[in-house]
Amino acid sequence: MKKIMMMAAAVLMAGCAVAQDVQLPEPNKNVAMTLMDALQQRTSQRSYSDKAVDGATLSQVLWAACGINRPDSKRITAPSAINAQDIQLYVLRADGAFLYQPISNSLKKVCSEDLRQPMAGPQQFAADAPVGLLLVSDQSKFRAHAERYGAMDAGYVSENIYLACTALGLNTVARAMMDAKVLSEKLGLAEHLVPMLNHPIGWPK
Amino acid sequence: MKKIMMMAAAVLMAGCAVAQDVQLPEPNKNVAMTLMDALQQRTSQRSYSDKAVDGATLSQVLWAACGINRPDSKRITAPSAINAQDIQLYVLRADGAFLYQPISNSLKKVCSEDLRQPMAGPQQFAADAPVGLLLVSDQSKFRAHAERYGAMDAGYVSENIYLACTALGLNTVARAMMDAKVLSEKLGLAEHLVPMLNHPIGWPK
Repeated sequence: MKKIMMMAAAVLMAGCAVAQDVQLPEPNKNVAMTLMDALQQRTSQRSYSDKAVDGATLSQVLWAACGINRPDSKRITAPSAINAQDIQLYVLRADGAFLYQPISNSLKKVCSEDLRQPMAGPQQFAADAPVGLLLVSDQSKFRAHAERYGAMDAGYVSENIYLACTALGLNTVARAMMDAKVLSEKLGLAEHLVPMLNHPIGWPK
Repeated sequence: MKKIMMMAAAVLMAGCAVAQDVQLPEPNKNVAMTLMDALQQRTSQRSYSDKAVDGATLSQVLWAACGINRPDSKRITAPSAINAQDIQLYVLRADGAFLYQPISNSLKKVCSEDLRQPMAGPQQFAADAPVGLLLVSDQSKFRAHAERYGAMDAGYVSENIYLACTALGLNTVARAMMDAKVLSEKLGLAEHLVPMLNHPIGWPK
């Protein structure tokens, strides 16, 4: 009983921490748009319908961003400096915040709160998107040049998100603006986990 | 006459500076590979045939990297922080070094020397590729967070290069290792122009 009380206290102290996994549908890679067309059509879009982004679509975007493309070696769609795979991808929605887990293709719920407002900061359009993706670099994976490499690696994942959204007909924009302090606190990010970029994502209005 | 002599002296002092433009063929965007297949097949490859990469193929890679995709607004395939478009792309070959000029889709020859060896540093495989691309961030375009933003923007362009090479059947790998001091000197890069990444590129052996 004492143990249970202590566990409950630990959960309460962690703010909005919760443990709950959501299995994503297998990402459908049968999307017709060619790479060159995606490059031709890629733009930054700052307006989103409030129509939900369903799990099947989200699974496609997350896989494109940094999903496993070589299951044997656990290598992913996005390159990274010294293959650090330092970018963690969080999904921020009305129903909470989730950490994307590429190997199991699942979402680990890490917070029950809606964190789209601290992600948006003063730019309301970003909070209105049904989904926000937050790119966090695990700087402990580098012995040197951590900020530079983490930023490059965020760029890799972010470009994949842009291109996937283009191919799927979604709007998005990469943003460095956010309330990183609040996000770090709510997500329980240690100091070496640094928010780099975020992507509001939604269907066109 | 005096003016001409002074101009000649200035050219000589700039080391290997030359002025010579090479028009690239229009990039052929009719490439069949889908975005999702490019993401599925993207890998880092460190071995290259010595077969030349022709101008038509180079034009496709350069356009995909950071070419104009919206001619009216001069916007490009790669996003950048505050739309700085800070990444300059240099082509390093046996016949010299060239700056890619997205608007005119041309190469401006900036050095007659082969700079693939300083690009490779101690990794000979990189010097053996027929083409090296060097990504340089113009840090003067940012008022704050210049290193972080420049690194992100290099990541964007680098991912486009990776995906284009995948779709075209070329091998490449992104590398931060290089002799940046020699490259900067030979290319006449001012201090605010910072080499970030390079990409040896070639056909598979």
